[in-house]
Amino acid sequence: MPLPPAVDHLIAELSRLPGIGRRGAERMALNLVVASPDRLESLLEALEAIRSNIGVCEVCGYFTEAGRCLVCSEARDPATIMVMERQVDVVAMEKAGGFRGLYHVLGGHLSPLKGLTPAQLTIDALCRRVQDPAVTELVLATSPSVEGDTTAIYITRQVERPGLAITRLGRGMPMGGNLEFTDPGTLRLAFEGRRGMQ
Amino acid sequence: MPLPPAVDHLIAELSRLPGIGRRGAERMALNLVVASPDRLESLLEALEAIRSNIGVCEVCGYFTEAGRCLVCSEARDPATIMVMERQVDVVAMEKAGGFRGLYHVLGGHLSPLKGLTPAQLTIDALCRRVQDPAVTELVLATSPSVEGDTTAIYITRQVERPGLAITRLGRGMPMGGNLEFTDPGTLRLAFEGRRGMQ
Repeated sequence: MPLPPAVDHLIAELSRLPGIGRRGAERMALNLVVASPDRLESLLEALEAIRSNIGVCEVCGYFTEAGRCLVCSEARDPATIMVMERQVDVVAMEKAGGFRGLYHVLGGHLSPLKGLTPAQLTIDALCRRVQDPAVTELVLATSPSVEGDTTAIYITRQVERPGLAITRLGRGMPMGGNLEFTDPGTLRLAFEGRRGMQ
Repeated sequence: MPLPPAVDHLIAELSRLPGIGRRGAERMALNLVVASPDRLESLLEALEAIRSNIGVCEVCGYFTEAGRCLVCSEARDPATIMVMERQVDVVAMEKAGGFRGLYHVLGGHLSPLKGLTPAQLTIDALCRRVQDPAVTELVLATSPSVEGDTTAIYITRQVERPGLAITRLGRGMPMGGNLEFTDPGTLRLAFEGRRGMQ
């Protein structure tokens, strides 16, 4: 197809976005090429604002434009800190709703095989936050995987102290899940995590 | 959701792209926010290149980075000119393949009710191109709609001259089409456009 190289290049860039295939990227790129210059300009400005303004919260490590993120600036319960691997996990939990405490973003999980060590995560900062006696519960919301569990166990050993409850997210059947198509690992977790009916 | 305003703004901008809903835009925006600075930078550069480098071909009006587009610079048959409403229509026809002539992009169609008059289209430039006796066929590929047909009829009156065949794209059943679900207008066109079997 005789597309100018700049358009081909934009299609390649857009194809790298999640959920965007070659056809979708092509449609988006052509739309941007024929769009009014204002539209292209406003998308460029939005991306430039991300580049210049988005940093991480000095307290918890979630996205922010200022020193403190919107969660840390809200009136939230400082007694509970939920530990997340990534910032997008905070987005997911906030969407789910129900949690009114604060977060701590580790920046990943431990994986000695991949060379991911405690020094690359914000574990030291977490230890300092948890020293505050006002913190009474730490919810470890690392991913339900070998690496996530390793990270949770490592953190537990680092932060244990009297008066601090350390918990992790419940595991089992997902909402709307179907027994027949649930993987054996999840079914085992669901059985181990069974709860009394009331 | 406590997203920084810059992220919300990027989501809104991405939602305006064709085929991108709120969820898709959110996923793309979060991906760009957490992506390496290089990735964001290369997308910005690709968009800036569109803004600075993409113009229209001085001959046919299709996208180009230089004075002449890639189609007009190729060794194509100058005897046939296909008239398109929009540049994206050229992309579609080039994808389909089979046409080896040149294009002329009108920039839209006539629609007196919407205030779209011949002066807003590149009809004058088309008349000048067609004066060249080397041009022997003009294929009117305006859209199969009232406005497209009006435009085709108007152009026919402007450019008629001995030695110039003026045609339009065939109409009828789309490939893979199903009679039961084909609209009456298309079925009528398909009947009128019936061809002998060989």
